[in-house]
Formats: sequence, structure tokens, C-alpha cells
Amino acid sequence: MSSLTIHANSHDYEVIIEEGIRHELLNYISSDYQKILIITDDKVSNIYLDDVISGLGNEFDPHITIVPAGESSKSMKQYERLLDACVEAQLDRRSLILALGGGMVGDLAGFVASTYLRGIDFIQMPTTILAHDSSVGGKVAINHQKGKNLIGSFYNPVKVIYDTGTLLTLPAEEIRSGYGEVIKHAFLSSPEWCNDLFQVSVGNLSSEQIKDDLMKGIKVKAGIVESDEREKGIRRYLNLGHTLAHAIEAELGYGKITHGEAVGIGLWFALRVSQRKLESSLPVDRYAEWLKSNHYPVEILKNLDVDTLLKRMKWDKKTVHQKINYVLLNQIGAPCVVGLSDQEIQTDLNLFIKEVSAT
Amino acid sequence: MSSLTIHANSHDYEVIIEEGIRHELLNYISSDYQKILIITDDKVSNIYLDDVISGLGNEFDPHITIVPAGESSKSMKQYERLLDACVEAQLDRRSLILALGGGMVGDLAGFVASTYLRGIDFIQMPTTILAHDSSVGGKVAINHQKGKNLIGSFYNPVKVIYDTGTLLTLPAEEIRSGYGEVIKHAFLSSPEWCNDLFQVSVGNLSSEQIKDDLMKGIKVKAGIVESDEREKGIRRYLNLGHTLAHAIEAELGYGKITHGEAVGIGLWFALRVSQRKLESSLPVDRYAEWLKSNHYPVEILKNLDVDTLLKRMKWDKKTVHQKINYVLLNQIGAPCVVGLSDQEIQTDLNLFIKEVSAT
Repeated sequence: MSSLTIHANSHDYEVIIEEGIRHELLNYISSDYQKILIITDDKVSNIYLDDVISGLGNEFDPHITIVPAGESSKSMKQYERLLDACVEAQLDRRSLILALGGGMVGDLAGFVASTYLRGIDFIQMPTTILAHDSSVGGKVAINHQKGKNLIGSFYNPVKVIYDTGTLLTLPAEEIRSGYGEVIKHAFLSSPEWCNDLFQVSVGNLSSEQIKDDLMKGIKVKAGIVESDEREKGIRRYLNLGHTLAHAIEAELGYGKITHGEAVGIGLWFALRVSQRKLESSLPVDRYAEWLKSNHYPVEILKNLDVDTLLKRMKWDKKTVHQKINYVLLNQIGAPCVVGLSDQEIQTDLNLFIKEVSAT
Repeated sequence: MSSLTIHANSHDYEVIIEEGIRHELLNYISSDYQKILIITDDKVSNIYLDDVISGLGNEFDPHITIVPAGESSKSMKQYERLLDACVEAQLDRRSLILALGGGMVGDLAGFVASTYLRGIDFIQMPTTILAHDSSVGGKVAINHQKGKNLIGSFYNPVKVIYDTGTLLTLPAEEIRSGYGEVIKHAFLSSPEWCNDLFQVSVGNLSSEQIKDDLMKGIKVKAGIVESDEREKGIRRYLNLGHTLAHAIEAELGYGKITHGEAVGIGLWFALRVSQRKLESSLPVDRYAEWLKSNHYPVEILKNLDVDTLLKRMKWDKKTVHQKINYVLLNQIGAPCVVGLSDQEIQTDLNLFIKEVSAT
């Protein structure tokens, strides 16, 4: 069993990663909890809910609430519905919410846990690779029609229970999505890890490899978040690749490309800008090959307009009149934040789209 | 100017109490804020909003959102509406929410501030005496149809600006309500302060007296909350008088009696139980005289049923099968928590209602 302790502002908590632990959940949940509410979505529940319920044994008689799969459930409507479910189940301060699912379920259930009775305990049970990113760091939220994650809290789980067995049924684009954030964490930390990942085909991963990469990714994220939980400084480095990714996601319409695939493409751009602006020595061509050989949908860029993407970036960063603060790399493991003018971004984006289109 | 620094878990903040400071607000608000949203209710806005806006000078161009006065605005509906207002005003992390009003406005606007963009700064400007209690301590919340304050956060303001000039227009029952919590704070801390208050007629208070009592009350509350912000221990002492008060409020229907008047009556009962159970020496007769001479509506108890009140108390404490943990006094300034059986509470309540009815 692999495990790691995260030191959050409010409390320490453990991340446990192991194949099959959903079947023996009872060993990982304190018997002090008098009630459990499982929150999950209608895709995950079909595959794993029975395992989780039987994994809890006879000790608990869990309440269950299922929301529709997909980002649109991170809504005020589902938030209200889940609070009603908490009240109906008569959860009190000695109760637990178990968030079983990907990032959407974790964000939504975590926000419910953070505000019901001014905060009750919750445990994350991620069922995607991508959720290695969101399950650590304490950001929980729902969306507003005007923007993602506009309503939320900083609130940490009491535990993260990661059964890598649940990752083996993920569709190809979800595995690519997860590895988009994984390789971002590699670029933020270690040339060796980057080289290892360049050898990997994400269509053909072993459970051991996934476990290893999740643990490394979570360590990188935890290291940064522990120094800056409230994102006043270095936590911004985690946005490497995200400025363009958010613009692509928003422009295509949410759901047209997975978040991590967009990050993978945004990272490619950030590396090219780092080369141009900082003269950084980075394995950009090698990374671009990796993206393409792993079928990241880089071709979507061909149809996007530079000026529209720039507008989206400025809206995302809420900097209409100023330079965009962009996360770049001096080298692998050495991120920095650099102000880029509109002109620079336009030029770089034009070059980048030309490069992508030529492939 | 009287001021006091509160040491919360997240940050220190200042409480400033002075008559007239709404007219010179600009001196108390950092010019770093790029946007301000004032949240207030339709009673307070009629009287004080213009003062506050002109008190902000030309430095800020505040956005304003007004909710209907009354407890029913602590709702999911108003919460959503206010979040929409934040988005429309394009508030960002360098923006400020100013909560101008009584406890309802503070709780509601504070909850909005705690969850918009995962938390932005807010300042409390209380306009009731009662709000000296809620503006300090970091509890913000809205109500659920099944219970008060079921949805909320622990979130502290960056400042409390208390203009005692706004308290002079309060109706008589609101002054009594505020002094219900004031005298509770006196019983939790100081025999001398209790004696001073026994001399006071709440219908005839000077601005200086109010300022002095607010400062003392906030000091008592802050002292307790600073040791136990998350209510895991001694913060429960602040519930002195509240178990019966909540039952009375719920039984009469919210709005039929002010919160602080119910607390005043609940405190009388807690003192009697303390005498009986702990043989405490307490000035209960003197206190009862004070309540009556100040026109606290003690007569409402005559029509209430002991068994119904008991059921309400147990629901409030969520202890169906156990004893109720009741806050009592060993002496003035020495609170404790004591488990009381249903039988004890029934007997004590019967005696108490008889005592009240005889007056």
C-alpha cells in the first residue's frame, strides 16, 4: 500500500493509493462516524457503488445520493438537492460524506461537506486519474453560469482513498486527460520523470505505473499547496498549461475536449513560449511527439482563432488592461510567472498554431 | 474611538465602535479594494444607506444590493441572488463586501463572501445591538426550511465597524433583544457588570452606555471564541439561555418574539436550574425583576406546553435518546455544561412556568 500525509492548514490527512481497496473500505474509515452519505454519479454508481457498499460491511448503513455524470452537475441545483439529502439523512457533526467519483463529484460533494452545518468530514474516493489533481489541495466548488468554480470553499478531506482498480475501466480520452495533469506535474518537478513518461504509451499502462505516477503527481501538488494553500504565491505554478487550456475549453464549449487533454496542449504552448521568452532549454519536440503518438487531439487548434483565444485568456485571468501573468519554465522543475503583452501572445499563438497545423 | 483586536484562526481583525463613523467610512476602509458591493436590507437602506455611500467619498463607486428585511431573507434564494450580484458587479479577489445591517444581513452577506471565488473580504457594519453577538465569532449561515443556520461557514470579517449612532433608531423590542445577549455576556463574565446592568433601563440608554456594553460584550465573546473557534469545547458556554430560547422561538414561530428577548427569558430559566441543580448562589430574583421592569415579554410562557418545549429542545440539540447538555452557572462568570434528564427538565419547566405565571 502506498500512502502519503498531506499537511493542510486545517489538519493533516492521508492519501492511500492501492488497487482493490474499495473492497475493504471498512479498514480505512473510522467507526466513530455514526452516519455516512455516499455521493456519486450515475456512471460511477453503475460500476462501483455495490463494491463500495459491501466494502463498508455491516458497520454502516450508508445513505446514497446519485447525481447525473458530467460537469453540468456542478450546479446550484444539485448543490441544493444534496443539502436537502443531508438534512433528510439527518447528518450531524459526527457524520461523513463519501465522494465517490471523478473531479466533478469531489468538487460538488466537497462543497456540500464544507457548508452543511458549517462543515462536516468528507473523504474523497477518486475514480479518475485526473482527480489526483483535484482531490488534493482543498479546492471545492460549483460552477456559475458565468464561469467555472466561481462558488466554493477551501476545504480539505479527512482522507483520500484511491483505488487504482477503478481506473482500469476509464475510456481512452479520460486516461489521456489524467496524464495531461500527470505530465504537467512532471514538468514542474523532474527531468527524469519527464523522460520516463516520454517512454510511456497512455493506452497501455500497468496498474503499477499508474500508482507510481499518481503518487509522484500528488507529491508535487502537495509540496506546492502546503506552502501556499490560499493561492497567494507559488500555487499559481500549478496553472502551467492552464491559461490556454481554459481558453480552448471555453471556446470549444465545455465537454468537447477533456480538461487534461486541453492542459496537455496548453503545456506544449507554455514550453514554446518559455523557449522564446526565456531561452529555456526544454525537450519541446520530444514532448510534442509524445502528445501526438498518444493521440492528444492537437488538431482542434487548427480551427481556432488567435484573437478569440486571447480574449478568452484575458477574461479567464480577469486582466483586461494589463499583461497576462503566464506560468513558464526556466527549465524543468523551475517554473516562474512572467507578464506577457497581448502582442507577444498573439505572435506566439500564431507561430504555435502554424506549428501544430503543419503536423 | 473604542477598538479591540480579535485573534481569529485565519487572521486578526479590528472591531471599531464609535458614534457617527458611518460618515467617515473612507478612513476605515483600505483603498486597495478595487470594488465594493454593499449588501443591506430594505429597512436599513431607507435610513442609513445614503450616509454610508457618502461616507465612502469619491474613492469608491459601490455596487448595492438590497434584500427584504427579516429572517426569511437568510434563504437559498437570496444567497443565489447575491452571488449573481457579485458576478454582475465582476467582483474579484481584490473586492470587498460590506454587510450593512443586523444579524440577518451579516450572516447572509458573510456566507456569500465566504463562498464567492472561495472567499473574498467582507466588513460587518452592524446596525443592531443584537449583532454585537453575531458580528464576532466567524459564524455565517443561511437557513434551511428544516432548521436555522444549517448551511454556512466559519468565516471572519476583515473588520467590524460599529456606528452606535445607528442604534438610536432601534424600536424598543430590538433594544431589549440586544440587551438579552448583553446581559448573557455579563452573566458569563462579571458580577459587577451584572449589577451595573440591573440599574439600567433599556428604554433610556445613552450612546456612551451602549458603546461601553457592546465593547464589554464583544470582549467576552471574543475571549471564548478565540480559544475555541470551531465550537468543540468552551464555545458552547455562549449558548447560555439558548436551549429554551430556541424552543420558544420555534414554538411561537420565528418573528413572533425577538431572539434576544427569548434569550433573556431562557437565561432566567437557566439561572433557576443552576440554583436547583448546582445550588449556585445567583441573583435570580433581581434578574427577574429587571426583565419585567424592562418589559421583556415573559407572559408568552404561560401559553406554552412543557412537553412540546421539551421536544423542541431535544430536536434543537439533536439528542433524542440522551440527556440534554445544558449550560448552567456555578456562579456568575463560571459556566459549565451539565447533562439533564427529560424528567428534570419537565419538573424545572413546570416550576418555572408557574413562577412566571404568578407574576
